[in-house]
Amino acid sequence: MKIQPLSDRVVVQAQDAEEQTASGLYIPDTAKEKPQRGVVLAVGPGRVENGTKIDMTVKAGDVVLYGKYSGTEVTLDDQDYMIMRESDILGIIQ
Amino acid sequence: MKIQPLSDRVVVQAQDAEEQTASGLYIPDTAKEKPQRGVVLAVGPGRVENGTKIDMTVKAGDVVLYGKYSGTEVTLDDQDYMIMRESDILGIIQ
Amino acid sequence: MKIQPLSDRVVVQAQDAEEQTASGLYIPDTAKEKPQRGVVLAVGPGRVENGTKIDMTVKAGDVVLYGKYSGTEVTLDDQDYMIMRESDILGIIQ
Amino acid sequence: MKIQPLSDRVVVQAQDAEEQTASGLYIPDTAKEKPQRGVVLAVGPGRVENGTKIDMTVKAGDVVLYGKYSGTEVTLDDQDYMIMRESDILGIIQ
Amino acid sequence: MKIQPLSDRVVVQAQDAEEQTASGLYIPDTAKEKPQRGVVLAVGPGRVENGTKIDMTVKAGDVVLYGKYSGTEVTLDDQDYMIMRESDILGIIQ
Amino acid sequence: MKIQPLSDRVVVQAQDAEEQTASGLYIPDTAKEKPQRGVVLAVGPGRVENGTKIDMTVKAGDVVLYGKYSGTEVTLDDQDYMIMRESDILGIIQ
Amino acid sequence: MKIQPLSDRVVVQAQDAEEQTASGLYIPDTAKEKPQRGVVLAVGPGRVENGTKIDMTVKAGDVVLYGKYSGTEVTLDDQDYMIMRESDILGIIQ
Repeated sequence: MKIQPLSDRVVVQAQDAEEQTASGLYIPDTAKEKPQRGVVLAVGPGRVENGTKIDMTVKAGDVVLYGKYSGTEVTLDDQDYMIMRESDILGIIQ
Repeated sequence: MKIQPLSDRVVVQAQDAEEQTASGLYIPDTAKEKPQRGVVLAVGPGRVENGTKIDMTVKAGDVVLYGKYSGTEVTLDDQDYMIMRESDILGIIQ
Repeated sequence: MKIQPLSDRVVVQAQDAEEQTASGLYIPDTAKEKPQRGVVLAVGPGRVENGTKIDMTVKAGDVVLYGKYSGTEVTLDDQDYMIMRESDILGIIQ
Repeated sequence: MKIQPLSDRVVVQAQDAEEQTASGLYIPDTAKEKPQRGVVLAVGPGRVENGTKIDMTVKAGDVVLYGKYSGTEVTLDDQDYMIMRESDILGIIQ
Repeated sequence: MKIQPLSDRVVVQAQDAEEQTASGLYIPDTAKEKPQRGVVLAVGPGRVENGTKIDMTVKAGDVVLYGKYSGTEVTLDDQDYMIMRESDILGIIQ
Repeated sequence: MKIQPLSDRVVVQAQDAEEQTASGLYIPDTAKEKPQRGVVLAVGPGRVENGTKIDMTVKAGDVVLYGKYSGTEVTLDDQDYMIMRESDILGIIQ
Repeated sequence: MKIQPLSDRVVVQAQDAEEQTASGLYIPDTAKEKPQRGVVLAVGPGRVENGTKIDMTVKAGDVVLYGKYSGTEVTLDDQDYMIMRESDILGIIQ
């Protein structure tokens, strides 16, 4: 993994629909803003608000849900990643 | 239940229109932004504002009303859930 | 009354146009954003701003004016209600 | 007068174009956002900002100018009123 | 002069294009948001921010530049005025 | 120079494309939001934030870069100027 | 390098798609908002928030990822640069 996200961003390796169905999560294709699921690979140091650093909640290894249109896709060494702000993450699958 | 919502989000299991009518709540299909009703399954830790955590008001088990277009639908283990911010919840049915 | 509104929301039972005309309030149908009138049935605890709870101004029993497109309509036990934020209320009819 | 405005709202009785011309104020019909003129009938207690109530500047009896699309029209006892925020008032005619 | 502007508003008597050209200022008609020039006739007391009144910078008699679409036109006693916020004023011609 | 800019505005004398190319800066005509270059002629006193004046960074004589659609064009004594906020300035050419 | 960026802006020398592929980063042309990659050449002093200067995270020499539509392109001495705010930078490639 070669990307160090800035501020409160996280790098996520998305799990595609097949993987998601296999693990029990089904997201219909017709949903307008459908959530997606992935594994957190790297987290930023957190954003600073009024001089105080806000700690990150998610950590590397977490499986997270996020909106379909959240974040930005990047491809590095033939691998797809998502970079998004932590506020775009809906929840952690436990 | 397998989703731990982040920040001030809640996971809600929606009750469909039939259930709602049975329990006395009728929401017309023609309403432009019609509220919906569901049971809270999980709540986040609350959001942080200026370094202070804002406690959540709703708790697991609450039956809540929310706008039709609030939140994001997810399906996990063949079960539909909604993930929304507490600020999208209009009220608690008592 | 079965809805406990959250934050600074209020539950209002709208008075329809006939009632309004009968009581002397006329709202033309051609008005783009016409106000409406109703009785407050329940009020939330108030919103929290910077750690301080802001008290509500309206109380149950108040007859209030609000914009036509303010709030969300809900129907509970065959009765129509409006849920809106106090900031959507224009004034109290005395 | 039967409306007690909330927050920093004021109730204004508009003076129509004829009255305005008679008193020397002419507002061309072609102006995109033309001001209007009226008499303040009631003022709210003022809005609260960070726990401090902001006093109102206008008072009942003031003749004020405001934008054409400011505020909301209401009719009570066959009389037309405008309810607007004080920040929509441009100035006081002295 | 009969208008007392509220908050940080100012009343300006616009100088039309001919006057402007005569005084050396030329504003092309094709400019999308062309500035205009006028004389300040009255200034408000200043706006209040967090309980502190912000003093006005311009004063009656100043010749100021402002954007074409800034402010609101009013006509009083057959005289045209502009009412705008001080933040709409670009600069003072010295 | 006859314009004293208000707040954090600056008056800039733009250098046209030919001048810019001559000095080595080339801005393609097809760029949607192409930067431009000019000399600062006058700077405002700075804006006030929470009661504290924020000092200006640029000063008269600086050659600055700014977006094509930043600021407002004025013509005074047959000379073209730009009035923009300092936050519209991208950088200083050294 | 001749541009000193203001506030929290950075000057970046973009690496085009070929360079990026050569170094292992592939960004599909069909991506609506595709990230791009470049080398930081200069950084501003940081922005000021409530009287406190916020230090910059990136420094000259960093290879960074940013959105395709972030920043403004400039050409100086026949060389292309991007000027963007640090908040437009997604992460640092290590």
